[in-house]
Amino acid sequence: MTESRLSQVDNLKLTMPALGIDLGGTKIRAAAVLNNKLVSDPQEVPTPSGAENIVNAILGLIEKFQAKHVLAGVGIATAGIIDGDTGEVVGSTGNLPGWTGTPIRTAIESRTLLPVHVENDANAAAFGEASARNLRHLNSVCVVTLGTGIGGGLIIDGKLFRGAHFGAGEVGHSRISLGNKRLCTCGLFDCWEAYGSGRGMVATAREILVGLNADQTPLVALGSNLTTRNIVAAAAKGDIVAQRAISMWHEHVAVGIVNLAHILDPSVFVLTGGMAECVDFALIHEMVVDRCMSRIGENMRIEKSELHGVAGIIGAAELVLDAILERAS
Amino acid sequence: MTESRLSQVDNLKLTMPALGIDLGGTKIRAAAVLNNKLVSDPQEVPTPSGAENIVNAILGLIEKFQAKHVLAGVGIATAGIIDGDTGEVVGSTGNLPGWTGTPIRTAIESRTLLPVHVENDANAAAFGEASARNLRHLNSVCVVTLGTGIGGGLIIDGKLFRGAHFGAGEVGHSRISLGNKRLCTCGLFDCWEAYGSGRGMVATAREILVGLNADQTPLVALGSNLTTRNIVAAAAKGDIVAQRAISMWHEHVAVGIVNLAHILDPSVFVLTGGMAECVDFALIHEMVVDRCMSRIGENMRIEKSELHGVAGIIGAAELVLDAILERAS
Repeated sequence: MTESRLSQVDNLKLTMPALGIDLGGTKIRAAAVLNNKLVSDPQEVPTPSGAENIVNAILGLIEKFQAKHVLAGVGIATAGIIDGDTGEVVGSTGNLPGWTGTPIRTAIESRTLLPVHVENDANAAAFGEASARNLRHLNSVCVVTLGTGIGGGLIIDGKLFRGAHFGAGEVGHSRISLGNKRLCTCGLFDCWEAYGSGRGMVATAREILVGLNADQTPLVALGSNLTTRNIVAAAAKGDIVAQRAISMWHEHVAVGIVNLAHILDPSVFVLTGGMAECVDFALIHEMVVDRCMSRIGENMRIEKSELHGVAGIIGAAELVLDAILERAS
Repeated sequence: MTESRLSQVDNLKLTMPALGIDLGGTKIRAAAVLNNKLVSDPQEVPTPSGAENIVNAILGLIEKFQAKHVLAGVGIATAGIIDGDTGEVVGSTGNLPGWTGTPIRTAIESRTLLPVHVENDANAAAFGEASARNLRHLNSVCVVTLGTGIGGGLIIDGKLFRGAHFGAGEVGHSRISLGNKRLCTCGLFDCWEAYGSGRGMVATAREILVGLNADQTPLVALGSNLTTRNIVAAAAKGDIVAQRAISMWHEHVAVGIVNLAHILDPSVFVLTGGMAECVDFALIHEMVVDRCMSRIGENMRIEKSELHGVAGIIGAAELVLDAILERAS
């Protein structure tokens, strides 16, 4: 391609926003994104049921934004395993029944004539984090989403690493215990997710509570209503059982990070998701360094996401902008 | 660079061998390598003590080969953490005291005027496997060395992935148990290496042997002389304790592979090292597929190395040839 055409594409990237869409189980959120930042307020609609209705809801959002912005393209982050080349949902997702097999990219491209990129939501969020934090020039970035479960995404040499079958980054389903003690939502035992997620913190607290009575800790009275919120609130009031659960949860989170550090030695870890709010970053850094080989530990960077739920939107938008540049080159 | 110069470099790669050198704790082995194959018999000398003596021994080997071959360059695989950019040993290695801090590349380049590349031995062996098996065109290759310990190397997009601080691929030191039960040689508890290595198989057998007597299994009589060889031999003769130890060892090997599969989703796993000879590949494949998410499991390839100890030599040689091409381009 000629230099003048390249600079045209560069201008495109710099002046025209892409629409980033984050398709979740309950709502679809979208915003216009330029240079790794939102340039519009996010809009959201409830997620309808059925693939056709979801596609129509996405088309409705695009139309709404097109009334105000000239869009360079549309990036869509969705649950499920996505074939990044075809933009098709190839692996099922419990939260979006009937979604597997949907050729999202073709469906949206054919009706909007805009370039579309579709990506797994954890991957898109990871790419959004790396982009917004200006980390894409580094050797590698490992983004870990600590929420009800644990997800992740890897950015290697500035590009999303999807693995050979678009399955990379399932870091929550690496096994950290041999006891067959905690059944994970994936059907396997003792995944990192069963310990280091929000659900893991509650499970840890329940194990500590066995045999204790309501005089020893108010958590006993909560029974099956025990949540991470209760545990964090009780710990803040000095409850030692809650504090012990949170301390053990930090140990569990650290195990998974140490494992990733020994396998990948990434430049930076970014922790995101609702449970990242519960992480004591000084403590987790100390734990991880303490349990890592010195060469890896002495360079350890563990940072907290500051994107507050828009990582998927930014990542999806940046991915379609990247795809446009790549197709043009 | 002009096309004619590129084809010159290509010719260089195709017609001139590089010398691959594998520097171990007891011996230094070398052979001339062309197109991923040895084109000379390997030669070896004992590893002397002290950095200067090692460098001189390497120079002696190069001279010997130069008498018979016109070498394009020299690749050196060595234990320790190696700065791939400078060719310096930056992290210590127990087997080669005094080796840390040695600027190997400079030392050899300045005295031979040949291009030199220095690489960590596990990385070089992994690159050798991927090169010799013609796997470099794939998305990603994960090589796992099952020996006394467990090492590894990752080839992503045809290139060695070294991590941000040349520490990637320490797959043996990902933790697979929370029990603080088995102390690993690295000083941490419950690393994959403490279970899935040869040492791990012996430890597993010892745990099963507790409380058993010599009438139940001849392994009891071996006491502290128990080795993987004894266990494998006893299992072949029908000893159920030995068979149980080997079956559990397969489970332990599978855990680590499943974890790597969920994190990286590589195109192929290659198992190498002395303990790969003890792996029942049909069984391990079944175990891994059974414990993997379906999208990852249904594409699982786990293959056995056929390089018989020359992977490091081939990898080191191919790495210097790659470096020559890169510098020339």
